[in-house]
Amino acid sequence: MQFTAESPSNGMIERDFTVGHVPGVLWSPASGVVRAPLILMGHGGGTHKKAPAMAGRAHRLVTGCGFHVAVIDAPGHGDRPRTAHDEQEIAALFEARAAGEPEGPIVVRYNAHLAEIAVPEWQATLDALQELPEIGTDGPVGYFGINMGTAIGVPLAAVEPRITAAVFGQHWPDVLAEKAKQVTIPIEFVLQWNDEHIPRESGLALFDAFASEEKTLHANAGKHKELPRFETDSAVRFFARHFGRAITSLI
Amino acid sequence: MQFTAESPSNGMIERDFTVGHVPGVLWSPASGVVRAPLILMGHGGGTHKKAPAMAGRAHRLVTGCGFHVAVIDAPGHGDRPRTAHDEQEIAALFEARAAGEPEGPIVVRYNAHLAEIAVPEWQATLDALQELPEIGTDGPVGYFGINMGTAIGVPLAAVEPRITAAVFGQHWPDVLAEKAKQVTIPIEFVLQWNDEHIPRESGLALFDAFASEEKTLHANAGKHKELPRFETDSAVRFFARHFGRAITSLI
Repeated sequence: MQFTAESPSNGMIERDFTVGHVPGVLWSPASGVVRAPLILMGHGGGTHKKAPAMAGRAHRLVTGCGFHVAVIDAPGHGDRPRTAHDEQEIAALFEARAAGEPEGPIVVRYNAHLAEIAVPEWQATLDALQELPEIGTDGPVGYFGINMGTAIGVPLAAVEPRITAAVFGQHWPDVLAEKAKQVTIPIEFVLQWNDEHIPRESGLALFDAFASEEKTLHANAGKHKELPRFETDSAVRFFARHFGRAITSLI
Repeated sequence: MQFTAESPSNGMIERDFTVGHVPGVLWSPASGVVRAPLILMGHGGGTHKKAPAMAGRAHRLVTGCGFHVAVIDAPGHGDRPRTAHDEQEIAALFEARAAGEPEGPIVVRYNAHLAEIAVPEWQATLDALQELPEIGTDGPVGYFGINMGTAIGVPLAAVEPRITAAVFGQHWPDVLAEKAKQVTIPIEFVLQWNDEHIPRESGLALFDAFASEEKTLHANAGKHKELPRFETDSAVRFFARHFGRAITSLI
């Protein structure tokens, strides 16, 4: 693991890093490097590790709870090169959108492909992060990712016992339900009640598939991209509850 | 409206009152009588206005947000007499339970009967409460009731424009869905994913029926009586968000 840059960012310390060829960012409390739980965050399709949703969620987790938060670029995203296969799938997605055809089949198969690459990358990243004294191997680790972040996070949680609580949501069950059946940790799962891409029954089926004894569904009225901002606060509280941290500020 | 008793209670001022023949309780901040939003709470079937769930939720709303909280005994409950019809329906419910038959048909019809009586009682109680200077006619009013509290609260919210945000949950859609279609205020709705009394599809159908532009479903793994305690915190935050109040303490 190599740190390539460090700067203050909105009340946090932001450190860019690479693990092998995978670039990532680690946000930590500005108050100093103190041992605290780690939240891994997965970004959405077509975005990247420092997209506004990632920086905003990190800010709440870091300044509100004192957590460390890490995000890596998914394959073909952010600072990583696209393969010919990536270009082909992205073109297929744009064609389907332009033709008004369902996105689901393309997103499901492309995200499943990316997850196969990303899961071992996340595990290597977690190995490296746990070597840092402010994280260590004995602290709790959470995962927070919606959309493509769920397509990668569910198979990751299925094989990675170090992750002990997760927030997922907004994906199809076609590939993920089988993985979700292997997940037993507490989860919070968001879906949009009027999602124009993911049929309601599909979203509910994925939530239903998790083997977790504690699982909570948050379904909000609205379309795919209208996930309410208060769900981020709820995710912060979910991790604070499970990792025994007080929330000092939610704003 | 007559106040019949006043005492300190767990950091709150507790005042018993009657409006006509209906007994109720009003919990207010101990810091003094300051104008603040009012939350009406409906208790569950077989319990009463001061049951532990009511006192506990009131404590969080009053000490956490500075709200006033009022509960009245439902017809045939608490300090109110049971009619021959009440006795008959309660006996039918116990017989169904003992025989392992579904409770739903009895609970639905009995609660619908109670709601017809309780809705005008709530409206008269709200009229009286709004005459108090610490409540007034221009502050926001919320409603928070699960189970029988929903059977009474949904028809109340359907006809009572003074209620501008509500937390409901855990009931059948048979009678209530038609009323829910008239409700347009923001709602939070809880259901239990493994409810042994209310089929999952029935609970989801009632949530779906609300005409509210902002509505959030919280479905938790677990049986009918296993609603997690953190849902009370969530309800408190829901009212704080809609009524513009800071939460000073959740414990």
